[in-house]
Amino acid sequence: MCPPVPLTGVIPPMCTPLTPTGDVDTRSLAALARRLLDAGVHGLFALGSTGEAAYLTDAQRRTALETVVDAAAGRVPVLAGVIDTTTARMRDHAVGAAASGADAIVATAPFYTRTHPAEIADHFRRLRAGTELPLFAYDIPAAVHTKLTAAIVLPLAADGTLAGLKDSSGQVEEARRLLVAARDRGLGERFSVLTGSEMAVDGALLAGVHGVVPGLGNVDPHGYLRLYAHARAGRWAEAAAEQDRLAALFALTETGDPARMGGSSSALGGFKAALHLLGVIDCPATAAPQVPLEAAAVDRVRKFLDDAGLTA
Amino acid sequence: MCPPVPLTGVIPPMCTPLTPTGDVDTRSLAALARRLLDAGVHGLFALGSTGEAAYLTDAQRRTALETVVDAAAGRVPVLAGVIDTTTARMRDHAVGAAASGADAIVATAPFYTRTHPAEIADHFRRLRAGTELPLFAYDIPAAVHTKLTAAIVLPLAADGTLAGLKDSSGQVEEARRLLVAARDRGLGERFSVLTGSEMAVDGALLAGVHGVVPGLGNVDPHGYLRLYAHARAGRWAEAAAEQDRLAALFALTETGDPARMGGSSSALGGFKAALHLLGVIDCPATAAPQVPLEAAAVDRVRKFLDDAGLTA
Amino acid sequence: MCPPVPLTGVIPPMCTPLTPTGDVDTRSLAALARRLLDAGVHGLFALGSTGEAAYLTDAQRRTALETVVDAAAGRVPVLAGVIDTTTARMRDHAVGAAASGADAIVATAPFYTRTHPAEIADHFRRLRAGTELPLFAYDIPAAVHTKLTAAIVLPLAADGTLAGLKDSSGQVEEARRLLVAARDRGLGERFSVLTGSEMAVDGALLAGVHGVVPGLGNVDPHGYLRLYAHARAGRWAEAAAEQDRLAALFALTETGDPARMGGSSSALGGFKAALHLLGVIDCPATAAPQVPLEAAAVDRVRKFLDDAGLTA
Amino acid sequence: MCPPVPLTGVIPPMCTPLTPTGDVDTRSLAALARRLLDAGVHGLFALGSTGEAAYLTDAQRRTALETVVDAAAGRVPVLAGVIDTTTARMRDHAVGAAASGADAIVATAPFYTRTHPAEIADHFRRLRAGTELPLFAYDIPAAVHTKLTAAIVLPLAADGTLAGLKDSSGQVEEARRLLVAARDRGLGERFSVLTGSEMAVDGALLAGVHGVVPGLGNVDPHGYLRLYAHARAGRWAEAAAEQDRLAALFALTETGDPARMGGSSSALGGFKAALHLLGVIDCPATAAPQVPLEAAAVDRVRKFLDDAGLTA
Repeated sequence: MCPPVPLTGVIPPMCTPLTPTGDVDTRSLAALARRLLDAGVHGLFALGSTGEAAYLTDAQRRTALETVVDAAAGRVPVLAGVIDTTTARMRDHAVGAAASGADAIVATAPFYTRTHPAEIADHFRRLRAGTELPLFAYDIPAAVHTKLTAAIVLPLAADGTLAGLKDSSGQVEEARRLLVAARDRGLGERFSVLTGSEMAVDGALLAGVHGVVPGLGNVDPHGYLRLYAHARAGRWAEAAAEQDRLAALFALTETGDPARMGGSSSALGGFKAALHLLGVIDCPATAAPQVPLEAAAVDRVRKFLDDAGLTA
Repeated sequence: MCPPVPLTGVIPPMCTPLTPTGDVDTRSLAALARRLLDAGVHGLFALGSTGEAAYLTDAQRRTALETVVDAAAGRVPVLAGVIDTTTARMRDHAVGAAASGADAIVATAPFYTRTHPAEIADHFRRLRAGTELPLFAYDIPAAVHTKLTAAIVLPLAADGTLAGLKDSSGQVEEARRLLVAARDRGLGERFSVLTGSEMAVDGALLAGVHGVVPGLGNVDPHGYLRLYAHARAGRWAEAAAEQDRLAALFALTETGDPARMGGSSSALGGFKAALHLLGVIDCPATAAPQVPLEAAAVDRVRKFLDDAGLTA
Repeated sequence: MCPPVPLTGVIPPMCTPLTPTGDVDTRSLAALARRLLDAGVHGLFALGSTGEAAYLTDAQRRTALETVVDAAAGRVPVLAGVIDTTTARMRDHAVGAAASGADAIVATAPFYTRTHPAEIADHFRRLRAGTELPLFAYDIPAAVHTKLTAAIVLPLAADGTLAGLKDSSGQVEEARRLLVAARDRGLGERFSVLTGSEMAVDGALLAGVHGVVPGLGNVDPHGYLRLYAHARAGRWAEAAAEQDRLAALFALTETGDPARMGGSSSALGGFKAALHLLGVIDCPATAAPQVPLEAAAVDRVRKFLDDAGLTA
Repeated sequence: MCPPVPLTGVIPPMCTPLTPTGDVDTRSLAALARRLLDAGVHGLFALGSTGEAAYLTDAQRRTALETVVDAAAGRVPVLAGVIDTTTARMRDHAVGAAASGADAIVATAPFYTRTHPAEIADHFRRLRAGTELPLFAYDIPAAVHTKLTAAIVLPLAADGTLAGLKDSSGQVEEARRLLVAARDRGLGERFSVLTGSEMAVDGALLAGVHGVVPGLGNVDPHGYLRLYAHARAGRWAEAAAEQDRLAALFALTETGDPARMGGSSSALGGFKAALHLLGVIDCPATAAPQVPLEAAAVDRVRKFLDDAGLTA
């Protein structure tokens, strides 16, 4: 299906459930997709950072994406991440994603290499030329170590290279300026800004973003959908209250012991532990070499779910 | 005067006008203070980063602070920055600020040195013990290269070390979690979170911050006061529209040529050029070794003022 | 062939010549390999950062590696980079490199993801378990944004996981401590430290590194071989003089205009321009989206070659 | 006294001993100075980072500098750090240092503020114009978060603004290029490059630096003087062996528990604990808010001193 223009709504970056031996657990992944679809999400984002795409082999990525596409069954658009170091490698992934049935591509700037803004712009133009699918830029400086500035993004929005931006930079002031500038240029209705700032979605929607891509939406899609509906209806106090509840729930990403595991492993492990505790997926394993959450950490995840009323 | 608990409202971080020879221009500084007071600001923050405190000698800082205290004349509280590398040096500034009549102190974590979170906490406790004045922590990682996390700040809020936080980190998700956690601990009414995210004030107020410290408020205090009033009255769409207007105006901070001057010089030069064009201050000079804005940049500043309707 | 233990000598990280349409130019690559072999290098490192591996598709990487293996014909060991984001993906590359005839694998810590030291250690252990080939850790924080500390590396050297370290961190003090600690643990004869600090090779050899992996060695292999021979013979003043000459020549990496291209593109473009001017490769093109050097920059490259006496 | 041109030799950045109540312990500081002078150092650097200058009040700085000047009694030049945020504040310190009898000034680029290279150059020119004393630039990106590149430094060396550079960047390849370029411009005999890379002094001297500013020289001045003498006599193997011994001794800077204190506190605490154990200073206290070393850490410091043969 062709994604709506502009793309709006709640579009969770899906976790990729794994079996105890590290294979993609297609049954659990399909179950997760159905749960999100039944909750009413507006799209699914497969193979993002939350989906551990950086840890998956090409074969595993294909399996995961095809599982999500099958589960979506055309009800909502499926966006596919093409995480890799540079243009030619991402183009190969984009071609594969199109063949697997994705509806749009989500690509970062080059990483590992150090790349000039002019080179980043050319990168996106070449990616766009290499596929029929709409292209979303993925701004995630914590991973890529480059910021996609408005000076880079706006010309690419204006000339049709980019259908939108997934903004995981956390830099909401830059996002505000981008939104204002895009509207000034008449791009507001065809360039979609999707925020990954999952603890500031109320403010982001107030500022005019089109949608939200919350990792925590794997765990509590209904919460983000309520938040989104409140905002769209102008019920800002209710939106803020829902965001406050979700911000408290987000603590489930920080239960890992920093002396023995990384913050990213703790966050991804927390999402998967929650999905396992909620009965959505069969196994909470994260991809190697990530350290699994210890039992005490899983207990804390359970408590956060309880506090949020998700285990009733 | 004792600042309200919690401190709320619009509290601009004041520019420090200079004479062509680099002295503090007390006449212009007093005029700027009166303009802000007449607009209805809820406090004045002297000797912050926007006030070029890092460029001023001790004698110049004293002159600037006393000028602002005199101009405030007890109508609103005056907060004083004590920017310096570590505890003992900041304590000397705090003692001086109290003698000059400041109503509260604003202090960063130590910088230049590399400091452990336990040391940062001890730093604030020692500063608090060294003065009678309420103490606000100043979180500005772009300058200090340390983030004041919730894990550092919350215990200091709970035990009364800190009266509040000036958050210039731009990390609104972290701020959201701090706000939620502070309310959970019953600190919402005595620990004041003031945002420096001047292009996301609407969202910050929706998230529950107590006030805002906008550098652009030197130029357009009425805009920020309208925004604040809209938010307090629950007129969120109007607040967002006002924020959009201010976000466009903020472009006056980026008129400098990056090939010949730094971004900070461009921003501070933009504020001062605007105040000079508006007739508030006599001279737009920034402190050495900052490069002055070229004439073409000043023309762009004028255009942004025109576009915002400030020169009518 | 099995690489010597410890691996020593001059082991250039080979450029990957491309055709004007962006394919691997196998004729030029074989010519470059023969030139290095004839100069007397002690090994060849294919698919490193200098080889633009991050820009090459899997198919292009295979072509490049097989070309180098064929050209080496067993005269010296061929090390193969396996640049990718995480363990499973690098393992796939390592399996492919072994099938293509590589003699050793060179792998970074995971990147794009944020990874804990314990996870990095596990990463290398899993990589080592997944291939028969000796494994070298590749420390390049400018690309990976993680430093491989002595605390991570030494246990992996002691237990046989790592055959060596390619140190492109530029942090020679850390390297010194690692060398001292490795010798204290009796690892000096089986753990090979290869420096990528190509402008400080004399000091690195004085400090005890086993070998050097200089990008500039593509252009002037004889210079690095003379430097290495001087150092091994204790002719330190002559080694330093040779290093000074090479440090001046290194300016050919900085001819690109920073307003229009990145520093990495300038460096890789400089190497390739030099090889083209020297008649070694047919086309100086770098991989997209890197910006090519302008003509004036190529002229400067020629001048640096002239000054270094390489075009006589 | 006027420092030699170029300044050469071993010039320790002196620790500043404190009393248990945090005052400058002038008796211990004089004793430390005498110990270094008796060992034969070529200069003394007071009020550097190792001297905890960032933690000292203006009054304490003056006391410390005057104590060192008195102890030096004209036998060797005394360099004085003027650590502060920007030009005008550093100029005030420079005037004070001249009045206290310092022979040269050591100044960083501005910090806390973000500063353009053109502004940094102007900063040093203004500082030089504000004092009669020779000016050394202090490159310490870990503290200042700016790198003094060759492009900034060389013109300032050529026009006489700078008498030298204290290079604490750890970037020895950049230092090599600076040395080569300075010699090419005929500046080798009047622009002094002093390395702070205390674990790579042998390689730095081989590369042509004029002198060394080792924090560990507080503890083992004889070791650095032997290393320097070996290098000057061309006994490079002996120099490297001495450097290896000192690199092992440097472990005394890392005995602190990273869970409870910072790395900087551990290093400064290690130096002072060693000086206390050696009977040079009366009290090992570091300035607040640094956490003191625990007893077990001090035991490890003692063991490293024993291993290095300093407690015989």
